[in-house]
Amino acid sequence: MVAKRYNEKHRVVFYETDVTKNINIGMLVDLMMLASENQSEQLGIGTDKVNGLGYGWVITQHVLEIERLPKINEEVKIWTEADSYNKYFCYREFGIDDMDDNPLVRMHTIFVLMDFKNRKISQIVPELIIPFGATETPKVKRYKNVKKIKEIDNHKKYQVRFMDIDSNHHVNNVHYFDWMLDTLDYDFLSKHTLKKINIQYKQEVTYGDIVTSNVQIINSNDTITTLHAVKNNDKVSCLAECEWI
Amino acid sequence: MVAKRYNEKHRVVFYETDVTKNINIGMLVDLMMLASENQSEQLGIGTDKVNGLGYGWVITQHVLEIERLPKINEEVKIWTEADSYNKYFCYREFGIDDMDDNPLVRMHTIFVLMDFKNRKISQIVPELIIPFGATETPKVKRYKNVKKIKEIDNHKKYQVRFMDIDSNHHVNNVHYFDWMLDTLDYDFLSKHTLKKINIQYKQEVTYGDIVTSNVQIINSNDTITTLHAVKNNDKVSCLAECEWI
Repeated sequence: MVAKRYNEKHRVVFYETDVTKNINIGMLVDLMMLASENQSEQLGIGTDKVNGLGYGWVITQHVLEIERLPKINEEVKIWTEADSYNKYFCYREFGIDDMDDNPLVRMHTIFVLMDFKNRKISQIVPELIIPFGATETPKVKRYKNVKKIKEIDNHKKYQVRFMDIDSNHHVNNVHYFDWMLDTLDYDFLSKHTLKKINIQYKQEVTYGDIVTSNVQIINSNDTITTLHAVKNNDKVSCLAECEWI
Repeated sequence: MVAKRYNEKHRVVFYETDVTKNINIGMLVDLMMLASENQSEQLGIGTDKVNGLGYGWVITQHVLEIERLPKINEEVKIWTEADSYNKYFCYREFGIDDMDDNPLVRMHTIFVLMDFKNRKISQIVPELIIPFGATETPKVKRYKNVKKIKEIDNHKKYQVRFMDIDSNHHVNNVHYFDWMLDTLDYDFLSKHTLKKINIQYKQEVTYGDIVTSNVQIINSNDTITTLHAVKNNDKVSCLAECEWI
């Protein structure tokens, strides 16, 4: 089977960018997630349909490769396709290209299906995946795990706010990325460029929780790696590994 | 002279909404500000042109009247026009209507022109306002001042982050509204509906500043008024008065 590819255009606007005039990372991921929602709606298996059957799609991992971040006022092409799936996991590919079709960003994402009744991971329901044209495969594809922090170079605390939670009752992507990157200072964030992000979501946080965002900064010859862990008391909520130049 | 009206459409998407499935207030204001930026670009007097002449537009006050907040997936019509101006102030009107032209939101905004050389308010420069078709008036129109807080019922502290600042080096609207409303709890925010906001910007905050967001909650018969003050040490950065039902 050949995966159906969904395409849309987007112009980056001022409130989606930061002082570097490039798009904010959380917003970048939100735009790609919106494209996948739009494809689902187009195929008649949007959020209402999925929720109506007692399920919800949950993301466990994003792997991003960034050639160049889209900049303010730039028009870009966003595409997505549901590549393959097995008993428990769906693999979706995303891309952002400039208007001359040069690749700017690639993202590989793992989705699982949560059963609302028992709040547990469900087997993939065929009618929710077949319309995408995704290939079924017995193999469990894995993405690289995020390296664990060994030493904490900086940390900050945040309380989960009403406005951090979107209409799906999830903390929106933007806020996770902001919590993680805010442990790096202005000098670091304005002088370095993100090239890769590998992020794993482990456990949800809810309204009022106080999360701690920890970072370890590892310098090597020509790249800097930052390791991030967002913790809710002792439970890890989210881990990420970023590469910068 | 008749003010030129600029129109555009927008579909509210998931990451613009909160758990109520309505649009986030800061995002609502951002969308209207974007419409005014788009009109400026269309008339050849966009940010680059204004900055190139050594100036920047700065907002001193927004007054919002909310009939109903746009909801997730809803398509709305956004319009704006530069109504009138005098020696120092420009008055701009905004509206959001549903697709049947029922008014959802009205916003009245005062802009001033800042001279980048001395960081002071400049007289309005005719070439930056005439293309909008705004009417010059000798009268200084005023909007109601925001009532001052007398007792602090709750307060929270925030440190201004890298990602709070947009490409214009200003703290984005979203964050001011989030700081102010986060002093109200989940129960309040999920059960009450915003009907009016009067917000006055007094003094900018910059990266690293620690701001305190104070609130006073005043119950009367059928409305609740909340008074807000965002302070940077002893300096007031922003005041707001909200009416809820």
